[in-house]
Amino acid sequence: MRWKCEAAYDGTEYAGWQSQPNGNAVQDFIERRLAVIFERPVRIHGAGRTDSGVHARGQVFHFDGDWPHGAARLLVALRVGFPRSLQIISVEHVGASFHARLSAVGKRYRYAYYAGHASPFEYRYYWSLGRRSPDVEAMNRGAAHLIGEHDFSAFGANPRDGRRESPVKTLRKLVVTQDGRRIFLETEGSGYLYRMVRSLAGCLLDVGIGKLRPEQVGEILASRQRTSLVATAPADGLSLEKVFYPEMADASVPPDRAVIESEP
Amino acid sequence: MRWKCEAAYDGTEYAGWQSQPNGNAVQDFIERRLAVIFERPVRIHGAGRTDSGVHARGQVFHFDGDWPHGAARLLVALRVGFPRSLQIISVEHVGASFHARLSAVGKRYRYAYYAGHASPFEYRYYWSLGRRSPDVEAMNRGAAHLIGEHDFSAFGANPRDGRRESPVKTLRKLVVTQDGRRIFLETEGSGYLYRMVRSLAGCLLDVGIGKLRPEQVGEILASRQRTSLVATAPADGLSLEKVFYPEMADASVPPDRAVIESEP
Repeated sequence: MRWKCEAAYDGTEYAGWQSQPNGNAVQDFIERRLAVIFERPVRIHGAGRTDSGVHARGQVFHFDGDWPHGAARLLVALRVGFPRSLQIISVEHVGASFHARLSAVGKRYRYAYYAGHASPFEYRYYWSLGRRSPDVEAMNRGAAHLIGEHDFSAFGANPRDGRRESPVKTLRKLVVTQDGRRIFLETEGSGYLYRMVRSLAGCLLDVGIGKLRPEQVGEILASRQRTSLVATAPADGLSLEKVFYPEMADASVPPDRAVIESEP
Repeated sequence: MRWKCEAAYDGTEYAGWQSQPNGNAVQDFIERRLAVIFERPVRIHGAGRTDSGVHARGQVFHFDGDWPHGAARLLVALRVGFPRSLQIISVEHVGASFHARLSAVGKRYRYAYYAGHASPFEYRYYWSLGRRSPDVEAMNRGAAHLIGEHDFSAFGANPRDGRRESPVKTLRKLVVTQDGRRIFLETEGSGYLYRMVRSLAGCLLDVGIGKLRPEQVGEILASRQRTSLVATAPADGLSLEKVFYPEMADASVPPDRAVIESEP
């Protein structure tokens, strides 16, 4: 039986998503809990690896395990035994063809800036900009150069594990909104290079504070070269919001999904 | 020279306000920083002691120290060297008659409940009620019995340090509001007994979920006896929002106040 799960976590408290020798990654916590529930080692497969300090409101992973008691009871079992900074928010029985990473058709990320000093209650989730107060309209003019299918090499970084992947990605959405001192960059795309969202966030902030002109974003993109013109924004502001999958009607699996009572 | 300061902190990370042998109280962090700035031990005086786990958005303290460089530079010096979960948000030069605790004429507290499971990003600041969904109107009917001047012995607890104080307090405001799953109890009063706000929050939740009738709140108050009918709500949901002082025009002190750029 294959199970698809959604997880939310405060990345401040973990060494990123991917399993670490010190056992302090999100994946480690979840696999340790599953080993208790299933009384054997269980390997999970995440939709994407969030870096240390990066948050998630909708990370997705899957695993295989025989569990005859239904999704609702699996969700209850899975919510116990974690720190409250890591929560499983949904569990769904899916067909064996589902794969959290390979089946994903897109992801939504949000990058959050705070124009000022974020309070003790929010600082973990914002890049505090101090006295810098970016021009959101300029940021959106810069962002417009990035929408669509492009070679994003200028906004990528070399992943630590030497993975190679195509630098051609499609951004369906890249928009900056403002709510008082809180500024949000929201992006939906087919996929992202390593540290790409943080690089977009760093570059667009520089447009917002006049260090770069909006048109330069298009020139940087066209150069396909990562240079010091593109700064990487800190991890704190970044959150993986949602992973998108195609509608999959798998007649072999009866519908069984459980979600906790919560709202954003 | 006397300085009045406002502080905000995430109580989850500290052993309460009052200085502790392990040095992990908010007061300890602030006094250590002041000792560096003034190159001598500096004792601070807080408006009130928040318990371990209780938050503050507007705790007030004062101290004496010669600082010829003005409030703005003192604020900058005071914001450095703390964890970001503890922030000094304002500094004001005041007259020698000001005392953070003795001059205070009232305090505003907020208690926050979450009808469901608060996310990894909010759980520190709410009492998560799971499946319990309180009736806010009933809570307000119960709260109405507590407005005004009363002997609040039934909602107090014995302080650990054996302090004795009058159980007669005046609540000017005690109102429950709802924003989706988030429910807030806000209270303004002349003063509060030890654990009184958490006792009010626990008792009014029991009214909201039908364990107590609204009229029973008045009966409990009139009994002036603390009994097991009044439960103490957990510290997480509580925050000291503001300390009130009378307008004090002290002609001997030129106006000098600095505030950080922030909003709630």
